[in-house]
Amino acid sequence: MNQDSPTRRTQVMRLPKRGDYSEATIHSILDAGFLCHVGFVADGQPFVIPTSYGRSGSTLYFHGSAASRMLRTMASGVEVCVTVTLVDGLVLARSAFHHSMNYRSVVLFGTATLVESSEEKTAALRAISEQIVPGRWDDVRWPTEQELKATKVLALPISEASAKVRTGPPLDDEEDYAMKVWAGILPFRVQPQEPLPDPRLNSESQEIPAYLLEYAKRPV
Amino acid sequence: MNQDSPTRRTQVMRLPKRGDYSEATIHSILDAGFLCHVGFVADGQPFVIPTSYGRSGSTLYFHGSAASRMLRTMASGVEVCVTVTLVDGLVLARSAFHHSMNYRSVVLFGTATLVESSEEKTAALRAISEQIVPGRWDDVRWPTEQELKATKVLALPISEASAKVRTGPPLDDEEDYAMKVWAGILPFRVQPQEPLPDPRLNSESQEIPAYLLEYAKRPV
Repeated sequence: MNQDSPTRRTQVMRLPKRGDYSEATIHSILDAGFLCHVGFVADGQPFVIPTSYGRSGSTLYFHGSAASRMLRTMASGVEVCVTVTLVDGLVLARSAFHHSMNYRSVVLFGTATLVESSEEKTAALRAISEQIVPGRWDDVRWPTEQELKATKVLALPISEASAKVRTGPPLDDEEDYAMKVWAGILPFRVQPQEPLPDPRLNSESQEIPAYLLEYAKRPV
Repeated sequence: MNQDSPTRRTQVMRLPKRGDYSEATIHSILDAGFLCHVGFVADGQPFVIPTSYGRSGSTLYFHGSAASRMLRTMASGVEVCVTVTLVDGLVLARSAFHHSMNYRSVVLFGTATLVESSEEKTAALRAISEQIVPGRWDDVRWPTEQELKATKVLALPISEASAKVRTGPPLDDEEDYAMKVWAGILPFRVQPQEPLPDPRLNSESQEIPAYLLEYAKRPV
């Protein structure tokens, strides 16, 4: 794969200076998130469905119920568009017109393929789990053969993608800098809160694992 | 409009017990966010683009550059799908299989129309601004006629939508409750951080407005 140049589909149209086609940037944005929006067309109608993902090398994995319309449609080989968006802050300018957001986003095109073998399915589910809560997989009961059968896993190559990034302060019209109005950035962070134990937690399982306590330090 | 019953497109397919078609639920989820993902089809290819929105009554407004491909495509009257997703927490079960997320999401279908009059455009831009930072609009310089001309505004009726909501603890297989593993919820919150002043802020504009200090209390 070559992420150093755009294709017709991935070419960033608006504000091309914000576009970035490097694999390092694209992977780092994908790795900072775990939720994407999958777009596909069924009967001429676009659908946009939120779902989790896991990256492993140059592959993005998705999973869900074998009955999922999204996964069945993806598995049929249609073109999909997968978008990951991380909002880093609000950009408060002096004019309404120059308000903006600081963000990191990736838009990925391609066709997905069904993962068939139990081994690759399990590895993909592990990748998704580790993407969402690093450390969790080793703690929990792994999928049985029956659970694997009830789960559809899809693989999408990360081969035609673009990133778009905005950082920094507002950029106002020169004459507006004299206005008397606060301007700057309101940074955002997705902040995990205190873990809430399951009311049915048994007496031997009360201790919160270290990887959850560490989670709040994750650079989202 | 009638949001009390699903259509063919909005019928929640997976886990229908999580589906909700009430206007109150749909509006409350839309009001808690400001970022959506817009899906549209161009040349048979699905695109999913993140953008901000503002709700005013039963209308969702979008804006952007007059040169935006997304807005030009939407304005041509094609079917769009707009999805808003709020992740409230990770649901950590005892088995990998029963891991989940707590979330609120809305999926909205329809066709958008171009807003032509300066008055409605300005009102829509105000609605978008107030959706993102309540109180900001009255502080800043409003759009000039020239800025309005450079801005495209689109209106999408909130008339064919569904919400999907998950709350509560993990639901494990009965035999797994005896496992020695922590289970529960890791709640998430989008947390605004300390406002960062623009390096070019003038000496009369240093004070952070009350609506920004209040922002952190917003129930996202």
